[in-house]
Amino acid sequence: MPNDLGKIHIYTGDGKGKTTSAFGLALRAIGAGYKVYLIQFMKGQDYSELKMLRRLPKLTFKRFGQKSFVHLPAAKQDKILGQKGVALAKKVLKSRGYDLVILDEIFVAAFFKLIKYSDIVNLIKVKPKNVELVLTGRKATPEVMKLADYVTEMREIKHPYQKGIKARRGIEN
Amino acid sequence: MPNDLGKIHIYTGDGKGKTTSAFGLALRAIGAGYKVYLIQFMKGQDYSELKMLRRLPKLTFKRFGQKSFVHLPAAKQDKILGQKGVALAKKVLKSRGYDLVILDEIFVAAFFKLIKYSDIVNLIKVKPKNVELVLTGRKATPEVMKLADYVTEMREIKHPYQKGIKARRGIEN
Repeated sequence: MPNDLGKIHIYTGDGKGKTTSAFGLALRAIGAGYKVYLIQFMKGQDYSELKMLRRLPKLTFKRFGQKSFVHLPAAKQDKILGQKGVALAKKVLKSRGYDLVILDEIFVAAFFKLIKYSDIVNLIKVKPKNVELVLTGRKATPEVMKLADYVTEMREIKHPYQKGIKARRGIEN
Repeated sequence: MPNDLGKIHIYTGDGKGKTTSAFGLALRAIGAGYKVYLIQFMKGQDYSELKMLRRLPKLTFKRFGQKSFVHLPAAKQDKILGQKGVALAKKVLKSRGYDLVILDEIFVAAFFKLIKYSDIVNLIKVKPKNVELVLTGRKATPEVMKLADYVTEMREIKHPYQKGIKARRGIEN
């Protein structure tokens, strides 16, 4: 990856589009010939995108989550998975084998105390200069945002949840 | 597409992630077995994602833009392309042949007066009930937002442009 790359992106806020942006960014980076590693935290459910993500070349994809959603206080198994995710992220970053590393929902994993916010700060610190790092999820903290180059807040202006409509397969999951 | 689908999404605001969210949503919808039609306004440049988009199954993809960027007042050719885009979008929506229709940067096309904001309102009106419609771009208007189910504002909190860094291939384009 050229020397002018290697930035840190954060997609946070309560609105739609954080995970889908990360997917789109992966698609764009792969299109430019980059190698991408995508790690998803908190997600063990069978989302529609999995089939497509597995078909993309130059994308390695690993998820750390159970089929059930995480509730507070988080179960021991959820914490173990979160910590495994952080350990893998560290290894992937240090390997310098990937141009773009995406840590999807990592802020939510920290909010649910599966991992610590300081784990995220440490991952940013081990990131080699020419690796682009994307972090997503609600509940990013000012401390982590200070270390990022791009910070985008997805702000929910209108959402049908507000009228009691459930998540739909192929759109929300 | 099931009857509970067919919503209207808007991704707007000055921040990153509007077009990439639309790509990610396309990936997710294709993964769920839906047929997707993506129309890009204002874009004729050679973006990195093109190669990957062309490889996706169940995605039809058409762009209406010149290689050069649009400046105000817009050239006649830009207006012709914008209007062709609207005409195709109308045809695609009415055909009922696609489950998800994405009109990328359509708000910017209206802002640059290639098309009218009322063209967008009319497209929303011809949308069949079970077609999901995604509209992206800065400069969405309150009138159009009122007709949408989901409105997300991508709010730029931090961006290296602020420090004078240019767009990078594979990340911004």
